[in-house]
Amino acid sequence: MKSFLNLNSDELLIEYKNLLKDYNEYKKLNLSLNMSRGKPCAEQLDLSMDLLCGLNEKSDCMSKDGVDCRNYGINDGLPEMKEFISELTGIDKENFIVGGNSSLSMMFDVISYFMTHGSLGNMPWGKQGKIKFLCPSPGYDRHFSISEFFGIEMIEIPMKKDGPDMDLVAKYVSEDSAIKGIWCVPKYSNPQGVTYSNEVVKRFAKLKPAAKDFKIIWDNAYFVHDLTDEETPLLNIIDECKKFGNEEMPIVFYSTSKITFPGAGVAFMACLGQNLKDFKKMYSIKTVGFDKLNQIRHIKFLKNKKTLLEHMKKHRKILRPKFKIVVDYLEKEFKENPILKWCEPKGGYFVSVDTYSNCAKRTVQLCKEAGVILTDAGATYPYKNDRNDSNIRLAPTFPSENELKTAMKLFCLCAKLAFIEKKLEK
Amino acid sequence: MKSFLNLNSDELLIEYKNLLKDYNEYKKLNLSLNMSRGKPCAEQLDLSMDLLCGLNEKSDCMSKDGVDCRNYGINDGLPEMKEFISELTGIDKENFIVGGNSSLSMMFDVISYFMTHGSLGNMPWGKQGKIKFLCPSPGYDRHFSISEFFGIEMIEIPMKKDGPDMDLVAKYVSEDSAIKGIWCVPKYSNPQGVTYSNEVVKRFAKLKPAAKDFKIIWDNAYFVHDLTDEETPLLNIIDECKKFGNEEMPIVFYSTSKITFPGAGVAFMACLGQNLKDFKKMYSIKTVGFDKLNQIRHIKFLKNKKTLLEHMKKHRKILRPKFKIVVDYLEKEFKENPILKWCEPKGGYFVSVDTYSNCAKRTVQLCKEAGVILTDAGATYPYKNDRNDSNIRLAPTFPSENELKTAMKLFCLCAKLAFIEKKLEK
Repeated sequence: MKSFLNLNSDELLIEYKNLLKDYNEYKKLNLSLNMSRGKPCAEQLDLSMDLLCGLNEKSDCMSKDGVDCRNYGINDGLPEMKEFISELTGIDKENFIVGGNSSLSMMFDVISYFMTHGSLGNMPWGKQGKIKFLCPSPGYDRHFSISEFFGIEMIEIPMKKDGPDMDLVAKYVSEDSAIKGIWCVPKYSNPQGVTYSNEVVKRFAKLKPAAKDFKIIWDNAYFVHDLTDEETPLLNIIDECKKFGNEEMPIVFYSTSKITFPGAGVAFMACLGQNLKDFKKMYSIKTVGFDKLNQIRHIKFLKNKKTLLEHMKKHRKILRPKFKIVVDYLEKEFKENPILKWCEPKGGYFVSVDTYSNCAKRTVQLCKEAGVILTDAGATYPYKNDRNDSNIRLAPTFPSENELKTAMKLFCLCAKLAFIEKKLEK
Repeated sequence: MKSFLNLNSDELLIEYKNLLKDYNEYKKLNLSLNMSRGKPCAEQLDLSMDLLCGLNEKSDCMSKDGVDCRNYGINDGLPEMKEFISELTGIDKENFIVGGNSSLSMMFDVISYFMTHGSLGNMPWGKQGKIKFLCPSPGYDRHFSISEFFGIEMIEIPMKKDGPDMDLVAKYVSEDSAIKGIWCVPKYSNPQGVTYSNEVVKRFAKLKPAAKDFKIIWDNAYFVHDLTDEETPLLNIIDECKKFGNEEMPIVFYSTSKITFPGAGVAFMACLGQNLKDFKKMYSIKTVGFDKLNQIRHIKFLKNKKTLLEHMKKHRKILRPKFKIVVDYLEKEFKENPILKWCEPKGGYFVSVDTYSNCAKRTVQLCKEAGVILTDAGATYPYKNDRNDSNIRLAPTFPSENELKTAMKLFCLCAKLAFIEKKLEK
């Protein structure tokens, strides 16, 4: 295959016309495929159906301490759930709060708390004038939406192969006391699948923020979501931070959304010292307890680390072929025609693609017009503004393998069309 | 029985010594009873065990629109849940947001939202300097805790037999633009069991607040929780407010906490216009959806208004004898010795008692020392400060009938001891 980069305008035009013919054939198929969100597929959800059958008798509803989980109480989570997540994460069980079905919701609560109440005796963020968050980008759009919702200015931090650009992070954080936090997906990051290296985690731990109330929001959403049989290690941010007296900097989050059911999982957060006291207090005011029956269901079904990892293998078996389809198509179509780059993730839920500058939006638009919905171009950047207009997040988990093949053929076609259009425009 | 009010000091002292003997006998029993919170008893929870068995097959997890409720999405609740609550409440289904397991949590979210974002284009409450809430008292301690948590000044409003003192409410609200809201439990109020009369609801509806962002927080927690076979009617606050162009004033809340399981129920809120838009937006940022499987469970189990009301009859059958025990003891011990007043509620979860001034704390303390935990005296007032020190909230639902009899005997004894102590002190 000839690289488009070596073609002249006339040759590109010929290619374009041929591709357009194919594209118009796709349009006739009236496709309706969606690979915009990191949604598990039905087959994955089927893996957890036994979760729903765990509670039949009254005795099934009792915690190991004999608490009737149908009733009010136990504000910060069942002890057995704390032990379970502690075994999985290596974080002391006492540092956890077990929540409802959404870790995003807990992150929102945390930011909202800091806005109204502040942290560690400092003024509430909402009363400090302009405040800012660092946003490693591309990143998770819903994190950025929370910042935007609270009027927190977002500063883009480029992602490198081993995590955010830590020189830049350290510089910003040490110089500007208006910078109050950073959003991190430290393992199999959304969308690039980057796992932060030991060096990066250590540099986080020894940050010297100008702001006394600086927080690392550590959304470890994909902590057991490996796509290969080899787990990618990630240092424990809390342990590392402790070494430098920064134990009240990180707040970490986990959930079972992509382990059991996105719509009915269990979320967890962990933090230390005053943070933990503050959030336990907050939740004691906000609720008389999260859904403990769902906590019981989860502990009965997932049991312990060993059984959980077995369960994750089943997810892997479903997901790996899907990711392979995506990567195979990208390799086949773009290895020798490098108008597009991609990362091959070892875990997580996405394949991140970078087109040539100013081609992402058009690629997504062309896909949409032929019936394949991708994540909006730009969505992975603060304010949905990808200045290069090049990043596209592909979410291969939800469609079937056949749908995915069709979608990827179309995607490759659209990426080529968009590239040539841009080239010929000049 | 002779009224203590007619006894002289010597006679009271003799009574005291006799009562103290009995009291010391109770102490020897090593009782450990708790009637401090409005918690359903295990027998009530058993009524809803079928709720837990509704989801077995994948097909059980589909909404009526074919949405897979195990997965992400449907941010504001399943249509069938909205229809269900609409049939029950007479409020248009389009005005509802269906939440997680806690309506308190939704109230907290609402107040927090107004603190950070404000309402109807006005400045966020958090930026308006001192703001205030009206608190009909005695009232629900957790409402007051939310106000206190956000630094909102609380103004006590006396409760009358048909609701809050509306002359006072209207005066405060029309004169002071710092007053941003009022906490209401309009039906079978916590703790007195008062249902707001039509007149009171209409006066709420035609309030002319100085604050453009004044809100009525209408926590209709006991909307189907009758203790008699005759339902006590309550006007629809939203309909009434509409008549006076005040449709963006009320925000109403319901939950199934005391219908199915307090630990695993479903909460609802309803509001109109910009409020509804604001909260739908907020929840779209805060979560990718509440627990829809639990919504499905509830709709399968509770079905519709008719079946729900049948279900509530079963609760009533368990609760009525318990309330009767409490009221019978109070009548027996205090009808002719009126050192204590009480309300006989037609619904809800409490019996509210008023001792003579400055006797409530001592009564609760005496009970505690003999092993019976009551709600802290004062808890039903803003800042836990009952200036009369007279209100005590009795929660008869959780203990068994036998436990309740013991607890009530002790309570009556302690109330008498406290009264005499106070009298002799003077």
